Amino acid sequence: MMDTELNKDLELNKEETDSRVQPVAILRINDEQWGELEDRVVREWPLTIYHNGQELVTLLTSPEFIEDLAVGFLSAEGFISRKEDLLDVRGDYEKGQAHVETSTAGLIAEKTFMKRYITTGCGKGTTFYDVTDSRMVKNLKERHIDIKAEMITALMRSMQNMSELYQKTGGVHSAALCDKDNILIYREDIGRHNATDKILGHCFREGIDLGDKLLLTSGRISSEILLKVAKMGVAIIVSRSAPTDLAVKLGNELGMTIVGFVRGKRMNIYSHPERILQ
Amino acid sequence: MMDTELNKDLELNKEETDSRVQPVAILRINDEQWGELEDRVVREWPLTIYHNGQELVTLLTSPEFIEDLAVGFLSAEGFISRKEDLLDVRGDYEKGQAHVETSTAGLIAEKTFMKRYITTGCGKGTTFYDVTDSRMVKNLKERHIDIKAEMITALMRSMQNMSELYQKTGGVHSAALCDKDNILIYREDIGRHNATDKILGHCFREGIDLGDKLLLTSGRISSEILLKVAKMGVAIIVSRSAPTDLAVKLGNELGMTIVGFVRGKRMNIYSHPERILQ
Repeated sequence: MMDTELNKDLELNKEETDSRVQPVAILRINDEQWGELEDRVVREWPLTIYHNGQELVTLLTSPEFIEDLAVGFLSAEGFISRKEDLLDVRGDYEKGQAHVETSTAGLIAEKTFMKRYITTGCGKGTTFYDVTDSRMVKNLKERHIDIKAEMITALMRSMQNMSELYQKTGGVHSAALCDKDNILIYREDIGRHNATDKILGHCFREGIDLGDKLLLTSGRISSEILLKVAKMGVAIIVSRSAPTDLAVKLGNELGMTIVGFVRGKRMNIYSHPERILQ
Repeated sequence: MMDTELNKDLELNKEETDSRVQPVAILRINDEQWGELEDRVVREWPLTIYHNGQELVTLLTSPEFIEDLAVGFLSAEGFISRKEDLLDVRGDYEKGQAHVETSTAGLIAEKTFMKRYITTGCGKGTTFYDVTDSRMVKNLKERHIDIKAEMITALMRSMQNMSELYQKTGGVHSAALCDKDNILIYREDIGRHNATDKILGHCFREGIDLGDKLLLTSGRISSEILLKVAKMGVAIIVSRSAPTDLAVKLGNELGMTIVGFVRGKRMNIYSHPERILQ
């Protein structure tokens, strides 16, 4: 019992210009009502990153801001640390490639990258705070940024209102870079870390200082995402969701403020609460 | 303005015997009320898997069912395919290790494992349906399992009721193996894929046939999780969340039924709807 009327109605809305979503034909069941219709799902798009001509990694991502993603990924992985070392970045949406040229040989980064990607389970995160990490994490304890709790509530509400792709497809993670008053950059992506890497890459390319910023994420705060944000030099990470024990431990050690379960006017501070003001 | 009364009250509940959670001191803000108290966060625990004496991978997981996880991981990655090739598995919670001995040299698996883990971004999923995958995916089109839509609704409700660790900490993924009437195995884990791998490993070790089963997951259906479940020989995957376009494409090709957005009496069928009955 397919509802072809419904199907026809939805055909009219077919002009989907958003490259991040893909129309698909589905069967929708709602109790006794069964109907075929056209729905939209989020795209999972492979991007291969080349560093100085060498294939490095293939990420599954939403097809936008791929130059930022490539630079953010290389920066988070320790391949580049200074803006002047970034010579060129070219994204190719046809081929699904991003080519990054740097003046750094990145010897340490290359070695630890291989080690890291082999000894950690894909999607399971890094367990260790390795040589690249320790070189890269800024001394966050010295960051004298603070923010009122009510502003965190307001910023989280703003981010949730911005979540357009999620509302369309229910399938993405979002991240936002904020100062004390506003969301400065907002990104959505199907990859857990890509949204954050896209923000990091944008800031790296534009030379934006992150010392007085905070990062909001829709996802859980694992040790992996905490380290990534710590390496960016951001001292406050905020989530609607929970942190893990390892993230809390690292947050305490590295001088990072972890705010979790931001829902309505409630929130939990898991480490370095001195930056949150009444 | 810390509420020390609140803190004292909670000290009484301190006897936490669940190794999967860790007590932490937090500052809870609820509008005007600020109070220090003890909360629980989910543990993120490193497990290193050794295959025939060789270190293979370190996963971050919830510290339980680690033998199942090790076997499930090796099976999903193509290192073992027959029960008789599994000689021994020993988990060591003290050292955070699992040692698996098999009679398979696993030459193809080892080579493609390296390739896969280097060329896919950690946490970003596999983009390709490689030689290991194509060897392993059963012909799911021939699976003549079917199930009533109302049973899917009931099974999803049961799984959500079981989600004890999530209710404690808000930080885990869950997965359940079901037949047409009941949940047979239920697992929770902090790792996106670990809950599924723990189920797979259990079935592998016990020789449980998966041809007439379905798998429920709390998470999004990406290409990566779809391939893992397809390799198990399970023909129906069900989620409360969304699939990606690549998962839908693979589901159609491999003969797998994808049911998404199971909420109340609603659900969407994205591929092979013939297995879902009114």
